[in-house]
Amino acid sequence: MLTLYTGKGTCALASHIALEEAGAAYEAVALDMANGAQRAPDYLAINPKGRVPALVTDRGTLTETPAILAYIAQTHPASNLAPIDDPFAFAEVQAFNSYLCSTVHVAHAHGRRAGRWADDAAAISEMKRKMPEVMAACFALIESEMFKGPWVMGDTYTIADPYLFTIASWLEGDKVDPKQFPKVHDHRSRMAERASVKAAVGVYVG
Amino acid sequence: MLTLYTGKGTCALASHIALEEAGAAYEAVALDMANGAQRAPDYLAINPKGRVPALVTDRGTLTETPAILAYIAQTHPASNLAPIDDPFAFAEVQAFNSYLCSTVHVAHAHGRRAGRWADDAAAISEMKRKMPEVMAACFALIESEMFKGPWVMGDTYTIADPYLFTIASWLEGDKVDPKQFPKVHDHRSRMAERASVKAAVGVYVG
Ligand SMILES: N[C@@H](CCC(=O)N[C@@H](CS)C(=O)NCC(=O)O)C(=O)O
Ligand SMILES: N[C@@H](CCC(=O)N[C@@H](CS)C(=O)NCC(=O)O)C(=O)O
Repeated sequence: MLTLYTGKGTCALASHIALEEAGAAYEAVALDMANGAQRAPDYLAINPKGRVPALVTDRGTLTETPAILAYIAQTHPASNLAPIDDPFAFAEVQAFNSYLCSTVHVAHAHGRRAGRWADDAAAISEMKRKMPEVMAACFALIESEMFKGPWVMGDTYTIADPYLFTIASWLEGDKVDPKQFPKVHDHRSRMAERASVKAAVGVYVG
Repeated sequence: MLTLYTGKGTCALASHIALEEAGAAYEAVALDMANGAQRAPDYLAINPKGRVPALVTDRGTLTETPAILAYIAQTHPASNLAPIDDPFAFAEVQAFNSYLCSTVHVAHAHGRRAGRWADDAAAISEMKRKMPEVMAACFALIESEMFKGPWVMGDTYTIADPYLFTIASWLEGDKVDPKQFPKVHDHRSRMAERASVKAAVGVYVG
């Protein structure tokens, strides 16, 4: 049995969708992030970083979206969520997910979490002001250089798909028009129709 | 034959050390980053992100340090650089590397590359001012919660070790005293003595 610690509107949705796609036995625990539950002592004992996602397994706890996604794919090989027997193709998936994690997610975080990198209110406002431009540049690169179609990696759906879907779902909130990126926009619409996505997203409603 | 695009003082050192540890057949091409070679059209044709590392293989080009490190480990199994047959242990390595990539490296980048997230000079200065505090907080968490010893993952050397070494080598330049973190500091000293590290670091001297 796996336990996913998650929160509404967070990157943990990617892992949540992947657990659904894998047909994994899991429960999802949504933290009350608005009230800082991710920094409460009981959660810090699970994940000292004070962030979601965290995936509790019978061997211990895993953090970091790319690592959790690869773990789900590798432990549920029948669901074919990553090319786990082809190191090059697997690395391409990992590279895409690492870009989302280290560059695109980080660009987004400069909107609402700029206080991680500055204390001064004017500096925080300036990061928030520039954030839509930085997010749009990331998505322009994804659209023109990375996205193969119809899925991120081409013909086969992988763990890159729920991760891109999750981050792309932040675009309107980040004041970026997703229609600028037709392939990503179409991908997002097709993702939203999948049973796995509906099941995962449904948990956060209300 | 593999070609690693790298640059002095960059995170590409981690991949460079891993190639040495793996005994891989490779050549290293060090870009003149100070003069913006990473943004020249011939390099953007290799890596449209305009960053290092990029690893050119006979199947295509890989980017992103965690993906390249895992690829080197998986394609050189005899060098035992990652627990590639144990998805949980592999995910722990990936989680550590993902934290370095998405949080620690990004904290460091707010020192010299803050212009990615702000245009205003005062905001850029403010990020630079706060950067040592953010880097120190990351290393405090690594020291107290993540580093197992004597290697990052415990008894066995993995691809997490050259990556930690690479980022820890930035501490003095980031005005953070590495002696605050005795385990990481000792690890850095032991790493510096390895033949693989000497061979890789030697390429950038002069
Ligand atoms: N690199 C981590 C980032 C995790 C992360 O930053 N999660 C955010 C939600 S999207 C969070 O928990 N933020 C809470 C906070 O900053 O207090 C990953 O990809 O899993
Ligand atoms: N997420 C990437 C980051 C790569 C990166 O930012 N590399 C830096 C050097 S440490 C770079 O090439 N910077 C050049 C620039 O920003 O112009 C990775 O981990 O490989």
